[in-house]
Amino acid sequence: MDLNSDLGEGFGIWRLGDDEALLDTVTSANVACGYHAGDPSTMRRVCGYAATRGVATGAHVGYRDLSGFGRRYIDVDAGELRDDILYQIGALSAFGPVTYLKPHGALYNTAAVDPAQAGAVVDAVLAWRDDIAVLCQPGSVLARLAADAGLRVVAEGFADRAYRPDGRLLSRREPGAVLRDIDQVAARAVRVATEGTVVAVDGATIRLPVESLCVHGDTPGAVAMARAVRGALHAAGVRVAPFAGAGG
Amino acid sequence: MDLNSDLGEGFGIWRLGDDEALLDTVTSANVACGYHAGDPSTMRRVCGYAATRGVATGAHVGYRDLSGFGRRYIDVDAGELRDDILYQIGALSAFGPVTYLKPHGALYNTAAVDPAQAGAVVDAVLAWRDDIAVLCQPGSVLARLAADAGLRVVAEGFADRAYRPDGRLLSRREPGAVLRDIDQVAARAVRVATEGTVVAVDGATIRLPVESLCVHGDTPGAVAMARAVRGALHAAGVRVAPFAGAGG
Amino acid sequence: MDLNSDLGEGFGIWRLGDDEALLDTVTSANVACGYHAGDPSTMRRVCGYAATRGVATGAHVGYRDLSGFGRRYIDVDAGELRDDILYQIGALSAFGPVTYLKPHGALYNTAAVDPAQAGAVVDAVLAWRDDIAVLCQPGSVLARLAADAGLRVVAEGFADRAYRPDGRLLSRREPGAVLRDIDQVAARAVRVATEGTVVAVDGATIRLPVESLCVHGDTPGAVAMARAVRGALHAAGVRVAPFAGAGG
Amino acid sequence: MDLNSDLGEGFGIWRLGDDEALLDTVTSANVACGYHAGDPSTMRRVCGYAATRGVATGAHVGYRDLSGFGRRYIDVDAGELRDDILYQIGALSAFGPVTYLKPHGALYNTAAVDPAQAGAVVDAVLAWRDDIAVLCQPGSVLARLAADAGLRVVAEGFADRAYRPDGRLLSRREPGAVLRDIDQVAARAVRVATEGTVVAVDGATIRLPVESLCVHGDTPGAVAMARAVRGALHAAGVRVAPFAGAGG
Repeated sequence: MDLNSDLGEGFGIWRLGDDEALLDTVTSANVACGYHAGDPSTMRRVCGYAATRGVATGAHVGYRDLSGFGRRYIDVDAGELRDDILYQIGALSAFGPVTYLKPHGALYNTAAVDPAQAGAVVDAVLAWRDDIAVLCQPGSVLARLAADAGLRVVAEGFADRAYRPDGRLLSRREPGAVLRDIDQVAARAVRVATEGTVVAVDGATIRLPVESLCVHGDTPGAVAMARAVRGALHAAGVRVAPFAGAGG
Repeated sequence: MDLNSDLGEGFGIWRLGDDEALLDTVTSANVACGYHAGDPSTMRRVCGYAATRGVATGAHVGYRDLSGFGRRYIDVDAGELRDDILYQIGALSAFGPVTYLKPHGALYNTAAVDPAQAGAVVDAVLAWRDDIAVLCQPGSVLARLAADAGLRVVAEGFADRAYRPDGRLLSRREPGAVLRDIDQVAARAVRVATEGTVVAVDGATIRLPVESLCVHGDTPGAVAMARAVRGALHAAGVRVAPFAGAGG
Repeated sequence: MDLNSDLGEGFGIWRLGDDEALLDTVTSANVACGYHAGDPSTMRRVCGYAATRGVATGAHVGYRDLSGFGRRYIDVDAGELRDDILYQIGALSAFGPVTYLKPHGALYNTAAVDPAQAGAVVDAVLAWRDDIAVLCQPGSVLARLAADAGLRVVAEGFADRAYRPDGRLLSRREPGAVLRDIDQVAARAVRVATEGTVVAVDGATIRLPVESLCVHGDTPGAVAMARAVRGALHAAGVRVAPFAGAGG
Repeated sequence: MDLNSDLGEGFGIWRLGDDEALLDTVTSANVACGYHAGDPSTMRRVCGYAATRGVATGAHVGYRDLSGFGRRYIDVDAGELRDDILYQIGALSAFGPVTYLKPHGALYNTAAVDPAQAGAVVDAVLAWRDDIAVLCQPGSVLARLAADAGLRVVAEGFADRAYRPDGRLLSRREPGAVLRDIDQVAARAVRVATEGTVVAVDGATIRLPVESLCVHGDTPGAVAMARAVRGALHAAGVRVAPFAGAGG
């Protein structure tokens, strides 16, 4: 099982989360590339530290929206979006190996349902190198289009998010959407890793066949949560390793 | 002799110069990388058209200063500047081959005299790939540091600029610093290409051993000037070709 | 009848349209405030020249999106949008009187139909000063909400755009949406000004009761078109004057 | 004695310092205006909270440099700098009263010694309203030019910085430049407020006639330090109040 986290999400003087502590815990680093967050020196620092820890690095690409942290939908033309993403991938490649791509924030949500923007993501990857993986939600439009294009698709799950019976995430606007109990989250992570299942909000057990679990990096207690998840996986005999290799 | 020009210097809806006409005339395109000008779709378009015309592409790197077009000195820390430049090189590599680097505007002028910023440019190139060339002024600090680091240095001259007897450019603030007569500029270009000399402002003939001539792209009459220079070189039997190969 | 035009839409080194020529022709200047276009020195120059010509100045407010020129819908939170607009109004007030507000591009289109974003525009105006007008499309959600809030609403029409029988603009994606014949456009302007009507695409005469006509500034031939409209209005005995006074 | 602090220095999702806690302690808020930090919603929040606490608000104006937090010298043309500053003042006026101006970071340091940039600051204030104060270092070029222009100049001191015998600040690069002992800093604040003197690094007592003391907001322990200074001033019978009134 891979553990991925969004890292390098500061900008200039501003910091968000504890990159080094998380890089000691996860196996894949989704590195912000300067569009929704991230700056060149942060990218260098994150990629450099990731390399020393055997952590794989991927391009965490977003809309060009520093003031909104990439969390606001933007109706970008598909061709421009493809170029924006390609630019971010290229920029990251100057600091470390780009072994995969994961969309950020509103682009993540949009590419899960909108063929035009999902297609732009796929086109950007194809224009770069067709041997990098796409990390995304199972069942999403992006997952389907990427697979259709012959790209490696890596499905990810969330141990700290509530799932609906249909396998989709419960909206953050609903109560109980985000789980905060460390033991509960760690136990869910183990279940996903060992059985490929998760208990949905209605109590039903549903399939969640994923290769990676996302642990959040920007919330209070993020580091403790990530460590607990990793520790529980280890205790359960689950091998924790990058899905992509650390590249290079 | 190579002819280089600054291209792709628009941003979003805004355009500067006629990229396509100049790409039909020059042999090396200094492509803006998004810091002082340039956006991903423009980079793609310029690199794509350059490839069809056999024009070499290089990274035209500048300070992060869209509002000042990179023409204002910024006292950037050397480490951050190295990372800023590396970011721009990487970004351009997503759209076309980066066969060389040329600093833009205030960074060009600063790197010509300031060892800290010149060193940052050299460090960025070394961190990328040591087989790309550095296009700069002969005799500059950047030229010296790049050569010391084992990089290929390509000296460039300006057929439309007045030279002082010591081989340096007359400041743009001085009258007569920029030559506007097409025939005169074309004749100077031929002399540089065939004899390696130029007539300075005091009438003395000085050595100007350069591999590339810069033709400006953002002034009225730029295209006509560039065509006249190329035509005159051709008529004089000078082979006009990229110093770097068109890459790829 | 007032003539309004979008002005000051350059940024840094980049220019769009001929501000001075249009300021000699129109009576209201929609001044870009730095979010979709415009920079402080351009704002000062446009406001200064407008003052000498008796042209009223208004805040042309947009999404924070220089790279997209404010033409892309952004799903901004209403509170943030209100603050973004307020910021732009305040900034413009440092350079000239803000006698009205007009949304730009995608915000113009969104505020015409979306109560949340239209409400943010109204809230921003109320937080500034309730004696400035809102320039917008007749019948739009923004027009209704602004009127409900007690603001002065100024309806605008487009002499160079085709209208549907229901009084709405034909989408730019449809053939014939933009009229380019100067004489035809000038005649339509006179008809709007003298009769308050326009001929729709199906040949029907419809009511178009507007106080202002928008003439575009960023297209080739924009200045000639604006002058023709103004000349035709003058010849027809229509008084051309700002709806808002030149402020100050 | 007035206590001023730099506030609202976050941007979008990023935060710097605890604005609310400091607004409970200081009497003048230097509000970032979006160029080196700050965004409209943060400006609104800081100005709103300041108003409820009787804290005066001033424009903390900087270079256009979010990625460098305004801490890097930029060789901006004086006319453009004046317009950039005017823009920031106007923007802040939309959220609260602008009762004074204080330059930020590298602009603060440059305006202390460079007549061109100091003159741009003064010109911006004059173009706005000549009844707002300029908060700056005593003896600086800015202090002199502002006074010459008839503006009210408010001198500020730093209780937590070491002073040289000539009354200037010891460079941050020198050891001991920043004092971290709370009791020592509080005692120095009282001495400045009651005697108008400070002990320089060589042990000499020098004059420091200031109306305001700057307490830093962005360092660990900033809030505790600010509270200690205020408490010590109160205990010493010094009245702590805004120099400018809370405006409005």
